[in-house]
Amino acid sequence: MRIDGLQYANWSEKIFRQLRQGGVDAVHVTIAYHETFRETVLNFEQWNRWFEQYPDLIMKGQWASDVDKARDTGRTAIFFGFQNPSPMEDDIGLIEILHSLGARFMQLTYNNQSLLATGCYEAEDTGITRMGRQVIKEMNRVGLVIDMSHSADKSTIQAADISERPIAITHANPHAWAPALRNKKADVIRAVTENGGMFGFSIYPHHLKGKSQCTLPDFCEMIARCADQFGVAQLGIGTDLCQDQPDSVVEWMRVGRWSKDIDYGEGSADKPGFPDMPEWFRDNRDFGNIDDGLRAVGMTPDEIAGIRGKNWHRFFATNFVPQG
Amino acid sequence: MRIDGLQYANWSEKIFRQLRQGGVDAVHVTIAYHETFRETVLNFEQWNRWFEQYPDLIMKGQWASDVDKARDTGRTAIFFGFQNPSPMEDDIGLIEILHSLGARFMQLTYNNQSLLATGCYEAEDTGITRMGRQVIKEMNRVGLVIDMSHSADKSTIQAADISERPIAITHANPHAWAPALRNKKADVIRAVTENGGMFGFSIYPHHLKGKSQCTLPDFCEMIARCADQFGVAQLGIGTDLCQDQPDSVVEWMRVGRWSKDIDYGEGSADKPGFPDMPEWFRDNRDFGNIDDGLRAVGMTPDEIAGIRGKNWHRFFATNFVPQG
Repeated sequence: MRIDGLQYANWSEKIFRQLRQGGVDAVHVTIAYHETFRETVLNFEQWNRWFEQYPDLIMKGQWASDVDKARDTGRTAIFFGFQNPSPMEDDIGLIEILHSLGARFMQLTYNNQSLLATGCYEAEDTGITRMGRQVIKEMNRVGLVIDMSHSADKSTIQAADISERPIAITHANPHAWAPALRNKKADVIRAVTENGGMFGFSIYPHHLKGKSQCTLPDFCEMIARCADQFGVAQLGIGTDLCQDQPDSVVEWMRVGRWSKDIDYGEGSADKPGFPDMPEWFRDNRDFGNIDDGLRAVGMTPDEIAGIRGKNWHRFFATNFVPQG
Repeated sequence: MRIDGLQYANWSEKIFRQLRQGGVDAVHVTIAYHETFRETVLNFEQWNRWFEQYPDLIMKGQWASDVDKARDTGRTAIFFGFQNPSPMEDDIGLIEILHSLGARFMQLTYNNQSLLATGCYEAEDTGITRMGRQVIKEMNRVGLVIDMSHSADKSTIQAADISERPIAITHANPHAWAPALRNKKADVIRAVTENGGMFGFSIYPHHLKGKSQCTLPDFCEMIARCADQFGVAQLGIGTDLCQDQPDSVVEWMRVGRWSKDIDYGEGSADKPGFPDMPEWFRDNRDFGNIDDGLRAVGMTPDEIAGIRGKNWHRFFATNFVPQG
């Protein structure tokens, strides 16, 4: 079983076929960065159209059992998530509405301060806001997973503590291995994983040691050390693959409508676009390389099966269903 | 088993308890007259709040099996519908979105011409529009039932013909019995029922012979004659109960935001408000009177059980699920 904890591709039949070639049974797909509720609904509509057009390749994923159903029928189950709470606007009632439509992950912040928490690029981290506490409770109730991938440290640790259900960092790497602002310090990873939460390893070059030149052994050795440190059962993959996107999209991801000035995020004025993926992971057909790399650094078949998808599957099974 | 094919009450714990006292296992509830998509979502949100607040009295209804589940647990299943296509605006993709949120009935028109068809108060009935044909196909695909209660005759007959799945008139009576504009001529009722569709009898006084003074025997005799004429299996109840609503609501139902002039609909300048319900059906606790009345006009227990709820249940079971 193979599950990818995050992708944001420029979706097409070609990529759906590559998902099948890579044996990807399920993928968590970002459908909102800065979108309003109504704009997010348009993105759900677009996916409904694709489900209708490519019924042999993809299906809507809502529950862990849909991963098994997809696997049994040779398809990929698509699970939806938001990298920002913008789709719920300032209306806590929209959380259940969005869950009914299929949303399963929502980041409380995307780099900036939100109504709920502080993003990882802000100078001051004030932690979870008053509304944030209400939203965490409601997300727990309906089964919408809190994702803190782009949040600041204190906000993340507080979210893990306040939440009654496990939370996730779907796509990041350890800060000690690659000191990007987006990567996570050990105490942050521990706060999430010690409560049953999941940490997904990113292959987005800005999160890698050596960026696009990062080697497969380096990446896999880092995973093996995290397994020692945090427990292999809490680890998965969240590639952050942004395949076939034009550079205008990374600008949308970074700036949305919150600024008239360009913000280069993890890029720079001379390298404003998407970085090149490492040569061992160009697209969904390359997942086998990660299996090989994990074997090469001495991980057991059981450990590899967990990281490849079984850990995400267990997490989906307990955290997508409503409480009580 | 008891199912009511339409109500639009000013919902409260009192009414939820009366539903239980009347033994109502399921009710189709109107949640939009003129609301936009976003306003309709607010109405779904309000119901989510009620489901959370009164879990021992009501539950969300999505499938026929939810009627059984409600019955087994002593609750009433609430099924959602719109009396106008306004919630889908001009976006065909919203049909599947609204079905995902729980919508199960949508009228193609509410008295006036819509983007889809002609309403029963227009001077000219041009039938199903170009967009209307596309919308009928999409409603068929996702399992959203076409309701023509407030539509004009030609539009209704065309909808029944174009639709690949049975359609409904959830709340009306025969025009020959009470010649209101909203009541339906025999050829219209036949077009709907001969394709497996359902006709629900209304107790809204403007649809009754003698209005608020209509007698129970008169009402039940009319039902018995319809059973002879159209087949008892296609008949149910759709009370159109608008309990505890202030008169400002009937003005909203009639005028919405489409006119600055008052339109009295079935009322008049001297009687602009909600009419009094007949004394034998004041609220949900009075359903037993209808059973008694149908027995008194000679209907068999099986026939009465069908009209009371089994016919709606069979219709729900085949028409709420997506095609294919």
